[in-house]
Amino acid sequence: MTQYKVPVIGGDGIGPEIVREGQKVLDAAGEVFGFDIDWLEFPHGADHYLETGELVSDETIKELSGYKAIYLGALGDPRLAPGILEKGILLKLRFAFDEYINLRPIKLLDGVETPLKGKVAKDIDFVVVRENTEDFYIGIGGRAKKGQKNDLLEVQRDLYSAKFGLDIETDSEEIAYQIGMISKEGTKRVMEYSYDLAAKRNNHLSSVDKANVLSDIYGFWRETFEEVGKGYPSVETDFNYVDAVTMWFVKNPEFFDVVVTPNMFGDIITDLGAMIQGGLGLAPGGNINPTGTSMFEPIHGSAPKYKGMDRANPLATIWAGALLIETLGEKEAADTIVKAIEKNILDKKVNTVDMGGSAKCSEVGTDVARLVKKLG
Amino acid sequence: MTQYKVPVIGGDGIGPEIVREGQKVLDAAGEVFGFDIDWLEFPHGADHYLETGELVSDETIKELSGYKAIYLGALGDPRLAPGILEKGILLKLRFAFDEYINLRPIKLLDGVETPLKGKVAKDIDFVVVRENTEDFYIGIGGRAKKGQKNDLLEVQRDLYSAKFGLDIETDSEEIAYQIGMISKEGTKRVMEYSYDLAAKRNNHLSSVDKANVLSDIYGFWRETFEEVGKGYPSVETDFNYVDAVTMWFVKNPEFFDVVVTPNMFGDIITDLGAMIQGGLGLAPGGNINPTGTSMFEPIHGSAPKYKGMDRANPLATIWAGALLIETLGEKEAADTIVKAIEKNILDKKVNTVDMGGSAKCSEVGTDVARLVKKLG
Ligand SMILES: CC(C)[C@H](C(=O)O)[C@@H](O)C(=O)O
Ligand SMILES: CC(C)[C@H](C(=O)O)[C@@H](O)C(=O)O
Repeated sequence: MTQYKVPVIGGDGIGPEIVREGQKVLDAAGEVFGFDIDWLEFPHGADHYLETGELVSDETIKELSGYKAIYLGALGDPRLAPGILEKGILLKLRFAFDEYINLRPIKLLDGVETPLKGKVAKDIDFVVVRENTEDFYIGIGGRAKKGQKNDLLEVQRDLYSAKFGLDIETDSEEIAYQIGMISKEGTKRVMEYSYDLAAKRNNHLSSVDKANVLSDIYGFWRETFEEVGKGYPSVETDFNYVDAVTMWFVKNPEFFDVVVTPNMFGDIITDLGAMIQGGLGLAPGGNINPTGTSMFEPIHGSAPKYKGMDRANPLATIWAGALLIETLGEKEAADTIVKAIEKNILDKKVNTVDMGGSAKCSEVGTDVARLVKKLG
Repeated sequence: MTQYKVPVIGGDGIGPEIVREGQKVLDAAGEVFGFDIDWLEFPHGADHYLETGELVSDETIKELSGYKAIYLGALGDPRLAPGILEKGILLKLRFAFDEYINLRPIKLLDGVETPLKGKVAKDIDFVVVRENTEDFYIGIGGRAKKGQKNDLLEVQRDLYSAKFGLDIETDSEEIAYQIGMISKEGTKRVMEYSYDLAAKRNNHLSSVDKANVLSDIYGFWRETFEEVGKGYPSVETDFNYVDAVTMWFVKNPEFFDVVVTPNMFGDIITDLGAMIQGGLGLAPGGNINPTGTSMFEPIHGSAPKYKGMDRANPLATIWAGALLIETLGEKEAADTIVKAIEKNILDKKVNTVDMGGSAKCSEVGTDVARLVKKLG
């Protein structure tokens, strides 16, 4: 019997209850496929922070770094200002473990309703690979007031005037700025991952950028995309401006196979992707470091107002569990879990309110676990 | 008879032919509503650049600055690298004339098919106000190689290490960076415009940001949104993360009345908005300086492969013409043009191929001109 140890961070709001259903399903898969998971519970989230002042300490990071995959519920609490938990826990872990791939399957499961006219399951089946450690997520920025000394700002103004040849207001009352950065290594590795993935799927890789306007950063992205592509002659490629991509997701999702995107645009287009695959209740995400510690989560938030009501939809989290177990090497178990989710939806018997049913969160978990045993 | 002088830049690809139809319709409106437009043709675009080396010269800008509204077809040519014409002409003019409002009505006209299930004309009727002169569009960025001296980069690296408390690769092979900036004045004025517009419509203003991650720049945006809002107690407001906004546009467009957004996010969500209102063939945009020179355009591109074929859909451009004439003070003419567009679509007789018809671009222009005279 293979033994895995998996840290679990239930987090805030509905996080703990949905992740519990994910654990239930993974345990069932273990029974069928011959593995056993030792779950290690971590208390991090809003309550823990408000009680102890700890978001995620260095010791916790060190401890977590000993495992291949973390299971995360959801983070976010109305008592805290926007950004505190997101940056202090979620982004902190993504960066600390150098989880440079954010993997988001956009797949319309059979039986799920998409908001798009005339599209059926086979039309929406692609994967977005979002770069996950660079770009505008590096958290560099600031403010400057009139007359206040700020080196960065000075350089910036010089550049600004130089580029536009215009006399800009150097005496603005106050400004705020933000810097994004991508590195050669950081861009190469996400491109390699994406080309590899495309080569395993349908040999079509689409890159997202806005090289016509944010030319410095995304010109570099585009170049690297082309460079790495030389090693994959069989993969067909195209560039797409991010604005156009949002249109094609809606108009022509069949076009896509694998999509590689910088971090911030990836955040935006994967939420749109979640919507076309039937909504956030069905969208899982993996934060992956192929040689280190990865982390799996539903891409929806913590929905504080449903906390403890046992009514949230656990399917995205269960699907994230499938991605997790696949990373641990249990591909068959992962495939079976996705099939069980699909069966649960097609049966139309045990579904949560958002899917038009009246079942509880825990009942859906139990049903998917049952189906895993049946199908496995 | 009121006399207007309007500079026209047909531009590239289908630009000249669609703008010609717009002129035809505006001339017809003039006959009915008692004004006359003197069209001043400008040759700018790819051909002109390739022949003369001029994108837009300072003299041209000076000349154009004498008018209240410019009519623009489309820019973009496959012979030139991405960014050349966009930055050298389109963005140059937006910045030079300080056209700080990019106004984009997202309105599903009667008779137009939206790709969204179950949505009808009355469900999709809002306006996006995109800030148009700041944010990540200011064109500041660069690259740096290992060992190469670069002041901006040094500051940036210090900041990076300081914020994350991590040891980052200071010896990256090469990096590329991009800087966005917003100013107090620049943010205030777009907020004031948006609150005013909401007060004239349904008193609901939604702001778009990503303050939980790009906190420096969009925390400032959010604060300013709240500050300015104090002067508009009757306008109901909400904040929305840009990722969530893309979902709501698809799931629940009824929610929106006026949406105010930073430049880059605005670029993305207005293309999505164009799609839900029936596609780019139907989406106009105005680049507005309320006290200076404004510029009106369809938001689609130059579609080089259809150049000169007289088959492009001119409706977005004609609608942009309605926005133009409204800016010149001819509100009744503007409303009549929009009604004529709607009638042309409902009639289902004279429509271009993209709308399921077989009419030529010029025939659609003629039909809308006829309808303007009939309805006016
Ligand atoms: C919560 C937030 C910080 C996060 C992000 O922006 O990456 C989320 O939207 C996501 O997509 O995982
Ligand atoms: C052509 C491009 C520079 C432009 C932009 O990004 O603003 C376009 O996409 C638009 O939305 O008007």
